[in-house]
Amino acid sequence: MQKTFYEKLKYQCDSKESRLCIGLDVDYNLLPDNFNKTIKGTLDFLKIIIDSTSELCAAYKLNMGFFEQFGSKGYELMEKTVEYIDGRSITIADGKRGDIGNSSRMYAKSIFNQIGFDSATVSPYMGMDSVTPFLEDDSFGAFVLCLTSNPGSNDFQKNIYKNEPLFINVLNKLKDLSNQNVGIVVGATQEEDMRLLRDLGPQMTWLIPGIGKQGGNLEMSVSLGNRQESFGIINVSRDILYYKDSSKDSVKFRANYYHQKIKEILNNGK
Amino acid sequence: MQKTFYEKLKYQCDSKESRLCIGLDVDYNLLPDNFNKTIKGTLDFLKIIIDSTSELCAAYKLNMGFFEQFGSKGYELMEKTVEYIDGRSITIADGKRGDIGNSSRMYAKSIFNQIGFDSATVSPYMGMDSVTPFLEDDSFGAFVLCLTSNPGSNDFQKNIYKNEPLFINVLNKLKDLSNQNVGIVVGATQEEDMRLLRDLGPQMTWLIPGIGKQGGNLEMSVSLGNRQESFGIINVSRDILYYKDSSKDSVKFRANYYHQKIKEILNNGK
Repeated sequence: MQKTFYEKLKYQCDSKESRLCIGLDVDYNLLPDNFNKTIKGTLDFLKIIIDSTSELCAAYKLNMGFFEQFGSKGYELMEKTVEYIDGRSITIADGKRGDIGNSSRMYAKSIFNQIGFDSATVSPYMGMDSVTPFLEDDSFGAFVLCLTSNPGSNDFQKNIYKNEPLFINVLNKLKDLSNQNVGIVVGATQEEDMRLLRDLGPQMTWLIPGIGKQGGNLEMSVSLGNRQESFGIINVSRDILYYKDSSKDSVKFRANYYHQKIKEILNNGK
Repeated sequence: MQKTFYEKLKYQCDSKESRLCIGLDVDYNLLPDNFNKTIKGTLDFLKIIIDSTSELCAAYKLNMGFFEQFGSKGYELMEKTVEYIDGRSITIADGKRGDIGNSSRMYAKSIFNQIGFDSATVSPYMGMDSVTPFLEDDSFGAFVLCLTSNPGSNDFQKNIYKNEPLFINVLNKLKDLSNQNVGIVVGATQEEDMRLLRDLGPQMTWLIPGIGKQGGNLEMSVSLGNRQESFGIINVSRDILYYKDSSKDSVKFRANYYHQKIKEILNNGK
């Protein structure tokens, strides 16, 4: 029987004792000197990154914008990257899509069936009928934007409606779905509100960006993200990909550093 | 001197006396029998649509999901379609992107510089720093989701915060930018709240989906969308593309029907 998205995620987290997600944000300007600053050179670089880190990370997150910047050739690079990962870790299409049902269904088709990702990030602004098309086949999952890591998260996400901020309204509507394949995006910079999110959604899976350059709190993210039966996946992008000389060894070293650090926090919490 | 997005839009609206936007939502299943149900067949079909309607419409809106469903080949089809339009009408990338600043900048680069669109739809959930990267070059514009046409618009957009619904909070933040190149998406099904949006944002450009299958009110959309100096662009997709046998003549007939009807409503309002 085919596994559900949640089962695939749990398998990755448990078997590798990992909660690390590596963000594959491709940037020509940061490629090491021995790689051509081309689509081909980028794919060669990504292959090395994947081969050196797949045993350490539960997931890879591909920021779709970084691929789309190269147009259809970049889209093809994204397809090849997912194909190369080949199920070694969970794949997350970080594209923050969200549209009327019919159109969201097209994005789901593109991301899951055409490119072959396991999951997608989704924006909830248009409401639940823009989210649910991503959950129609339970072998795939969705991480819905809830409380993000950027300064703009203060603009609307924290508006108070019926005594609760918008991001809690979003959490509650997602809880109503009673679907293990849906999770939320919670920025690691949101120390104050993380505890509230975990208290109100004890089972919810989290995808946690904001560690590294954005200055989020790793310890708090790991321990609140992974309380009891919940999973919180910690995304690190540049601080692994472009660590030191970005060589195979440097990247592996840095991925292992995060992997161990996360494991240590998990074990301390037991 | 290069024109700003607003100037390009105004030129299209004034010179063609049109507020019509044709939505290019490609669907193999609805292609006429004499076209191959392939990417190539779809491009042939779109070329005929564009040639028969470009004098009647101020804009073409490409629903990115409908192209992305075919993966990188679909992305390439989107590039070729925009290239074929070649400035005859304004082009709108309807992808509802929106991410942290750095990533939104990648999407803007992809949509404007790589594919060659004039404007993009943007989702505001992540806040203003996810919107402004689309406005950094004033030859391009953004239509930010405000009050959408789908049932899910009731889930969050109408939450009341400080006596105003979320969609009005979004409008106000956009007004603060004082930038003519930003507009909002207003669903034609939102009769009750359209008047409020126009009263509070008298200058704001509107992109108005929801006419046709979704049952939006054309008369109200045209007259409120285009009050005094403002522009309101009316999008129609399937009811033009797939009208009768989808032949060149049928499509042109239907586009002209909407064009004339809109013109009539505009003239009655004078």
